[in-house]
Formats: sequence, structure tokens, C-alpha cells
Amino acid sequence: MKNLLVIGAGRSATALINYILEQGRIHNFFITVADADIELARQKINDHPNGRAIWLDASKHNDRRDAISRHDVVVSLLPPQMHLEVAQDCILLGKHMVTASYVSKQVFRLGDEARPRALVFMNELGLDPGIDHMSAMQRIHQIQKKGGKITAFYSYTGGLVAPESDNNPWHYKFSWNPRNVVLAGQGTAQFLEDSKLKFIPYRRLFRQYRLVDIPSMGEWEVYANRDSLLYKEAYGLTNIRTLFRGTIRHRGFCDAWNALVRIGLTDATFPIVDSDQLSYHDLMEAFLGISQHTGSVKDRVAKMIETEPDSDVMQKLEWLGLFSKRRIKVKNATPSLILENLLLEKWALGPTERDMVIMQHEFEYELSRKKRKLTSTLIMKGNDSADTAMSRLVGLPLGIFVKLLMLGKISTTGVNIPTMPEVYEPVMAELEDYGVKFIEHEQ
Amino acid sequence: MKNLLVIGAGRSATALINYILEQGRIHNFFITVADADIELARQKINDHPNGRAIWLDASKHNDRRDAISRHDVVVSLLPPQMHLEVAQDCILLGKHMVTASYVSKQVFRLGDEARPRALVFMNELGLDPGIDHMSAMQRIHQIQKKGGKITAFYSYTGGLVAPESDNNPWHYKFSWNPRNVVLAGQGTAQFLEDSKLKFIPYRRLFRQYRLVDIPSMGEWEVYANRDSLLYKEAYGLTNIRTLFRGTIRHRGFCDAWNALVRIGLTDATFPIVDSDQLSYHDLMEAFLGISQHTGSVKDRVAKMIETEPDSDVMQKLEWLGLFSKRRIKVKNATPSLILENLLLEKWALGPTERDMVIMQHEFEYELSRKKRKLTSTLIMKGNDSADTAMSRLVGLPLGIFVKLLMLGKISTTGVNIPTMPEVYEPVMAELEDYGVKFIEHEQ
Repeated sequence: MKNLLVIGAGRSATALINYILEQGRIHNFFITVADADIELARQKINDHPNGRAIWLDASKHNDRRDAISRHDVVVSLLPPQMHLEVAQDCILLGKHMVTASYVSKQVFRLGDEARPRALVFMNELGLDPGIDHMSAMQRIHQIQKKGGKITAFYSYTGGLVAPESDNNPWHYKFSWNPRNVVLAGQGTAQFLEDSKLKFIPYRRLFRQYRLVDIPSMGEWEVYANRDSLLYKEAYGLTNIRTLFRGTIRHRGFCDAWNALVRIGLTDATFPIVDSDQLSYHDLMEAFLGISQHTGSVKDRVAKMIETEPDSDVMQKLEWLGLFSKRRIKVKNATPSLILENLLLEKWALGPTERDMVIMQHEFEYELSRKKRKLTSTLIMKGNDSADTAMSRLVGLPLGIFVKLLMLGKISTTGVNIPTMPEVYEPVMAELEDYGVKFIEHEQ
Repeated sequence: MKNLLVIGAGRSATALINYILEQGRIHNFFITVADADIELARQKINDHPNGRAIWLDASKHNDRRDAISRHDVVVSLLPPQMHLEVAQDCILLGKHMVTASYVSKQVFRLGDEARPRALVFMNELGLDPGIDHMSAMQRIHQIQKKGGKITAFYSYTGGLVAPESDNNPWHYKFSWNPRNVVLAGQGTAQFLEDSKLKFIPYRRLFRQYRLVDIPSMGEWEVYANRDSLLYKEAYGLTNIRTLFRGTIRHRGFCDAWNALVRIGLTDATFPIVDSDQLSYHDLMEAFLGISQHTGSVKDRVAKMIETEPDSDVMQKLEWLGLFSKRRIKVKNATPSLILENLLLEKWALGPTERDMVIMQHEFEYELSRKKRKLTSTLIMKGNDSADTAMSRLVGLPLGIFVKLLMLGKISTTGVNIPTMPEVYEPVMAELEDYGVKFIEHEQ
């Protein structure tokens, strides 16, 4: 196996492509980068002799199959809803497939077809999900090996802005898909606490955050992330009492984001006809209650979200320009799309600014009848807005795994996530060469 | 045109079928009722010589087309998402089509194909939408004809329980699709007030209700219904300043329903694994905040929704059995499905109990430089749980329209809703024979 096809040349592709090009010199790998924007694909290959860019509209079945048929391994960086079709092609054509995305039910069901064909379909192999699984499983297996019984597991990740580039009142800038940030948490988060099922609906998600101490970085806010229960079985933690996965944000972020949620600005369910004829001020007024007719729009919004007009939360809203008479730029847009476009301007990472990723696991366990706690923390900063910590931490695990796979070192077939030692040991070991090092604290 | 095909023999079919069977004797109509449950279809036909029941799985293209091809007019009472396929068949086979459902974008686009074929595709022809459009348009045209300028239009409808059958603390029983009641309002309601766009997100919908006086029936609560703005153009009210459509509920309902929404019980986005292993008490505990560990589940729920443990709202929740240790009956169900199943038991209309429909329009207009207000109110009660006001008011307009269509009295082709005099005049006139009479108050 020498030929890799990467479908999608976006942000998450860079570190993966560079890694495979670099390894290609040693192992004689060849990488094809396919994208509907061939210029973008060309930039990423940058005339490297072990790579080539091709034009591909991934929604065209025949073109897609033709491209897949000429490679050994496929990495799909397409939007998640498109993985299923690629996976079906890979079954049909007998190719291995790797993604950084959550396993959908439909892709999961393909496991029964992938296994008998000895095909490797590895997913959730980026940062979160990805490095979180691998680093957690490494420590879970270590604790279990020495006879420890894990009673609680907390795992937190945040894609953040580095303190030296943090110069806005939200203390946040985008290092990843803005849409996912705007729509984060819609639905109901699930986790386990003291052996009891716990649900947090979206309307309470950004209010019921926890405060978490990150060694050397102070206190941060953490809100619950999706369905933590899924990982009880996946991690083999059948008797665990508490299991919680969360997203890390700077102090003050959740209260202010909750204000945007309360106002209604994260709603993606309806388009506002001729939204480009409205100002942000008009938009805020439209969301105001019908019986609160006195005072400025700003005062009435403050009242609606139960805060003072000069509170920290209101200052953050004002800084975004939500009370300005400036026209909205997007036409027939949902409130969430209007918000996303505004935040894209306000929360852009400047060319020389640095992002920062924090990941922390906390394991509570019993060993020799004593209660113990292990905290394991990763802090990584990017170099600039092109070479971000986020893109490295998503792309490198993909690259390292693909290398192992192409070198014939992976035996786990079927649809999986990276919880097994044959994957996490070599991937985590090589990631250390790239500065991915967890600091441990035992209590 | 003599042959009518009705697809779907559920609740809304009864009054329609009876009407067409009755008219069939005079006009020589023949009606075929098609359903996947042929026994249900047979019951509705009840051996009448002008009718027949057939078995039909409407998702099977060939069977469906075959049935449609042998009739002149098709009434689709299928779930809304299935109308499009039926409509495409009707275009193909040159048949007229009638529904009581909201016009989807896809069905709307078929208008360009229906018109040149001289096909009538009439929709929103039940109660709400349906009678609301027709009765409102009748009055709008009357006011405009005498030179009045309409400045505000409010329209409210409620499917309710008659006072003589009202014996539960919610003062509500189901006379219609329980799922629609449980999921009502998800998204963001839109309307126009004082020429300003207004949005009410779901989280505020049941808090921002209005109080409306219904002549002889006292004061009721009204919450905003979907997108009122759509009807600005449809009703030809281009210069109107206020346009609001709402749903009527008994005093006290909205606050208590808002409690269910706040807790998270109307969430349809995730299934609870093994929900049949939980009690209602466990379910409520799961929704409780993680930092509120003192007191009973009931006390903590009261605190979460900011009320007293013995408040009216809490009494309504308790009456539903939400704090009982009784097991939930449905497996792997979403919170909203669990709630729906519980309410089906608690809010069932007993065999001899009566439902009640209230519809009220309020028109504010200027005539001869004077401000005037017209209030137009319909109150109708059912006979029992089979012959409900709701099913009559949905089925009769469909039946009367189909009769007019088969007698060649409808000239409006294409995809429409019943806003034109050639439809609303004869339909409203005949509805009066069935006791559908609006009482008017001029101010």
C-alpha cells in the first residue's frame, strides 16, 4: 500500500498532507489531494514530487469512484453527512477508509461488511474526537493494569486563543469551523453522575457550566459535550459511576453565549426574508418581547436576559455590534447564519496570532483501597493563523495512522474508533515528537 | 367528474366521507377510501352503496398511481411529507388534488405544472388552516368593499375541551393529533406588530402569551402560531401594520406547558436508551441540575423552574404523574414521545365527552376617518369523542369543496389556498347549514 487519496483540502488537511509528503520520501508514499477547488489542493501539494492535486466534485458518484479505485487508502475530510457514500464506495472497491468524524449509525452498520473484506474503517481520529480517545485509553489501560478501579472520568477539550493573542472581551477566536461553534450544543447533552443519568437541554447548557482548574492556566468554564454515555461501552468502563465530556471556554464566555442563545440568535430553523434590509439593531428589536415597550433596545434586551445594561455580558454583546444600525450583510439568512457571519469578522484569528488547544482528563480511581486522582493535561499553541495547534492536532493523528496502515501495522478491521493499544500506542508515541505531551498530576 | 379517492381513513376522514356519501345519493358521486388499514376504511364506508374501501400502502408508487388513475379527484389525508409524491402523480395522471395541510415549498412549485394542465390543487382547506382563511377573507373583502383600510388583523384558533367535559387541572383534552400538540411551536414564531418584525423563539413562546376575551366564554390565553407573515401577501394585506395568528388555550395552560418545555420534556432530538427501565421520577431527576442536590426531586424541579412546590404549575405536573415511581412504558423513546404517551392517557377525551373549537378574528380598520374594530367568533362543540367539532370542522370544508369541484363550479387552477370568493362564499354558506356560524361584534 503506497497510494493515499485525501478528499477535501480544507483547514484540517494541511498537517495531514505535509506529514504524508514528508514520510513519502522515506516510505515511497504517494498522495493525491482531491477537491472541487483544485487551486486549494495545488497549494497544499506545493509541487512536491510525492503528491498531486486533482479536481473532484465528491457528489458525482462516477468521478468519486474512479478516484477511489486508483488508491489504497482514502481519508475523507468531507462534511460528515457525505462519509456514508464514500464508505459504501470503499466497501465496493475494497479500500481502507479513515476519518476524523463521529461515527454515524449508518457508517457503524457498514462494519459487518468491512470486517469480512479485511477492511480498516477508522474514525474519530482527529483531536476531539481523536487524541482524547487515545490519550484517555492509554491511561485507562495503565490504571486497570496495576489493579485500579476507575470510578469517575472527566474529559475536557477546548479550541481557544493563546493568551498572547487574546485581545477581545469574549477571550475567544475561531480556530475551527465557525458553524459548529455557533450551533454547538443544540439538542440535549447526556452524561452519568453518581450512577445517575443526567440530561442538560440546550436551554440550560451554557448556564450549567462547571469551573475546572487547568494546571498553570487557572480556572476555565466547561459545558457538557453531546452524549458522554456513548463512551462508557467504547472505553470499557462498564462499572463507572461518573462519566462526563465537556468543552472548555474562558471565564465569562458561557454567560455571554447563553445570552445569545436566550435572545434567539443561534436559531437555524427559519430564514429571515430580506434579512439584508435589516440592521443588527432591527434584528435585536424583533426578538424583544411584545409587552416591553419602554427604554432603548439595549435596555430592553438587558431586561429580557435578566442582566444590567452595563454588565459584562451586555458589554460583550455591544462589542459584537449587535446594537449598531449597521446593515446585516447576508440575505434571507437564519439568525444563526447572521450571527456566524458577524462572528467571522469579530473573532477572526489575525495572520500572526496564535491559537491554543487545551485537553484535560481527570480519572478518579481506587487502588489498594485508597482513592486516587490522576489529572492529565495537554496544552499546545499554534505558530500563526495558518499553522494552528488545532489543525496540527487534527491532521497529525490522521497522518500517523495512515502511515501505520500503509506499512501494514494495523490489524483491527471493521468500523472502529481508536481505543486499542495497536493504534494509540504508536500514534501517541510519535505525536510526542511533534510536541504533543500530556503533563500528569497524581493526587 | 364523479369519482373521489380519499387516501387515509383516520380521524379527519370521517366527516368528509359521510358528507360525500350523503351528497353521493343526490349527485351520483362515488367515493373510494384507501388505507393501509382496510378495516378502518370499511368502517368509515359502512356498506354504503356509493362507497368502497380499498387496501393501499401509499408509499408503494405503482399501487398508488393505479388507484389515483381510476378517479377524478384525490383528497390526500396522508402525513404532510407524503403530499408531494401524490401531487406529482396527480400532475402526471391529470387529476385534481385537495388537502387540509400547509402548502410546502415543493408542492407550491408544482403550481407551474398544474395551471397549464387546468388542474385544481387546493390546500389548507381544513379548520386551521382552512376555515380561518375563508372566514377571514370573507370579512377582509367586505371591509375593503365598503372602503375600509385594515390596519391590524389577529386570528386565534383553539381545539379545546367543552366546559361540561372539562374535569382536569390542565383544562385540556386531545381532540387532534397529540404529536402536533406536544411538538407545537418548536422553532421561532414570526409576526408583525406596529410595522415591526417580531420573533418569539420557542423558549419564550409559552411565556409571552396574550390574554384574549372571547365573547360569552371569558378570558383565554393565546400563544403565537408559526409564521404569520406568510399571510400578509396571501390575504392581500400589503399595508397592514399588525398581523398575528395564535393558538387558544385555557387560562393557566401556557405557564404549565412552559414548565414542561423548560424541564426538557418536549425534546424530540434524542432517544433515551432503555427508557422503559426508568420511572417518571428517574426521568425528572435526570433533567435536574447537577448542583442542586438537596431536597426531593419535586422540590428541586420547582426550584429549577422558579416556582413554589405547591404552585398551580407544580400541581398540574404532579397530576400528570411526573413524580411517580411508575415505570415509563415506551422503550428507547425521546422525551417528547414519553410525554406524548403519558398525555394520551391523561388527556383522552372520554367516549361521551365533548370537545370544543373556538376561532376568533379581530380586524382593526379605518373607515371614514374613524377607527373601528370587528370581532368575529365561532364556537362549536362536538357530540362525543367520535363526532368531534374538530373532525367536522376539518372534514366538512374538504367535502363541500370537493362537491363544488366535481360539479364543475371551481375555475381557480394551480396550487392555491382558499382565499378567493368562488371558494369561500359557497363553502362558508353551506357550512352554516352545519351550524358553523360566526358571531360578529362591531366596536
